[in-house]
Amino acid sequence: MPGCGMMTFEDKHIAYQSACNSQLRQVVNAYFEPASKVCEAAAYTLMNGGKRVRGVLVQAVCEMLGGQPENALAFAAALEMVHAFSLIHDDLPCMDNDDMRRGKPAAHIAYGEATALLAGDMLALQAFEVASCAPHCQSMAGQACAVLAAAAGAKGMIYGQELDLYYERHSASRQALEQVQTHKTGALFLAAVQLGGLAAGKTPPHIPALAQFAAYLGRVFQIVDDILDVSATTDTLGKPVGSDREQGKATFVSVLGLDEAREEAKRLTEAATAVLQNAYGEEAWFLAAYAQRLLSRLT
Amino acid sequence: MPGCGMMTFEDKHIAYQSACNSQLRQVVNAYFEPASKVCEAAAYTLMNGGKRVRGVLVQAVCEMLGGQPENALAFAAALEMVHAFSLIHDDLPCMDNDDMRRGKPAAHIAYGEATALLAGDMLALQAFEVASCAPHCQSMAGQACAVLAAAAGAKGMIYGQELDLYYERHSASRQALEQVQTHKTGALFLAAVQLGGLAAGKTPPHIPALAQFAAYLGRVFQIVDDILDVSATTDTLGKPVGSDREQGKATFVSVLGLDEAREEAKRLTEAATAVLQNAYGEEAWFLAAYAQRLLSRLT
Repeated sequence: MPGCGMMTFEDKHIAYQSACNSQLRQVVNAYFEPASKVCEAAAYTLMNGGKRVRGVLVQAVCEMLGGQPENALAFAAALEMVHAFSLIHDDLPCMDNDDMRRGKPAAHIAYGEATALLAGDMLALQAFEVASCAPHCQSMAGQACAVLAAAAGAKGMIYGQELDLYYERHSASRQALEQVQTHKTGALFLAAVQLGGLAAGKTPPHIPALAQFAAYLGRVFQIVDDILDVSATTDTLGKPVGSDREQGKATFVSVLGLDEAREEAKRLTEAATAVLQNAYGEEAWFLAAYAQRLLSRLT
Repeated sequence: MPGCGMMTFEDKHIAYQSACNSQLRQVVNAYFEPASKVCEAAAYTLMNGGKRVRGVLVQAVCEMLGGQPENALAFAAALEMVHAFSLIHDDLPCMDNDDMRRGKPAAHIAYGEATALLAGDMLALQAFEVASCAPHCQSMAGQACAVLAAAAGAKGMIYGQELDLYYERHSASRQALEQVQTHKTGALFLAAVQLGGLAAGKTPPHIPALAQFAAYLGRVFQIVDDILDVSATTDTLGKPVGSDREQGKATFVSVLGLDEAREEAKRLTEAATAVLQNAYGEEAWFLAAYAQRLLSRLT
């Protein structure tokens, strides 16, 4: 498996992450207003670590499909910006009211509520300038914006956030929970593989095996998050353990139980790997290993 | 002046407004999730009357430059969506804390704060799917998204909202006030003429006379708003009169005085008309009359 004789998984993973981080730093320098506290708050959240899962996926899919991963960097950055926007707004008092994010005060705690609100807004908007000015993918810019907006918008992530809030006050079946997850986290995972495809010049971006992979992976990611919320330490998690339960949130743990949630995450990881290897064979090595890596957060 | 012998100003104005409204209805039907309260709240604000100034401008500029105004409708709708998003978030308790908007309860009063927050987010995001799927302007879609994001984002409208909040707590010189206005309202007026240009196939959209016209018009619009805030009735205004003063906001009236604000609005309207007629002659008839119409809200 190690890197088709070229790069190990670890090297490749770190390379994707650093390329994404360095692209985001360039975005901050090029697009953010230096005199603005709103931009400072946005950079505070955007540059605060993070695994860059979505940004890594965009690049890895692009490379697996024969594209240059650096051509995918603008789309990767745009997707990470949309993700960071959703975190800032999700943490606000009228939403999940979370004070901590990745081991630091949430944006509205550090900068105040109005500034955090505008910082989220700005990241959501600015993502589209970043995506549409992608230097190597000018012809794909319009399609990339459409993919990003559809994933995040009325029938995508935002709808997932609405459903998530709804099920804080109503009991959720397993089916309901899966619907929340498909929208709330799944939509951006799907966008990641679509944007990676666009960056590799593959259009239309409807690649069934990749979409299926993204759906499995997104679900695993959410299940693992839910498990860590009850089993990790505050230090590892970067926010208080048990915050989901405290908010009365339905999670894969509360609905399936801890053991079945673990089993489901393992099964879906196998399914994600299988669908990709069937479609892309050896070329899928990194993404298959990456799926295992996301699961291994549990161990 | 009346319509180059074809349509009067009134007919044309109503035609642009109805085309914009009907495009927005189509957007609601095509893109909004029917089961979503967030989408209902977004439609509540988006479809609540409004003069459609930005949507009218996009179409009128397109037509003045020789394009088909219906080719500009997707861009017009996208711009109105970004504007509606800014109104919803501006009214939130942590921002201006306004309970009324256009004679009806603000979105967060009617639907609650979390739903209003997400409704604004959704409109901001969804605008980019609308712009990038413009049927007649596919080749311009990427550029249109870039224009829209730059106008609304870190160095545009969002920065204007930040400055606006800052000057609620700090005294503002005339220069500071003009900087706020240039960003807060001016940026979307500039985007309107740029998008109109793109829809007419004019690229790059940097047309100096049009940009200057947009800058004058945006300032007039803000000055007139500030005057109406102190001189109109609550009924006409659709929100409580004097709300700016109550919030300690610096306005063109508080900085210039009422008489000088009126004079400035007249002067800038003349300047807007002149710059356009010098550049486009007779073709500018509608936009010149439209500038007078925006000023006439004062009488």
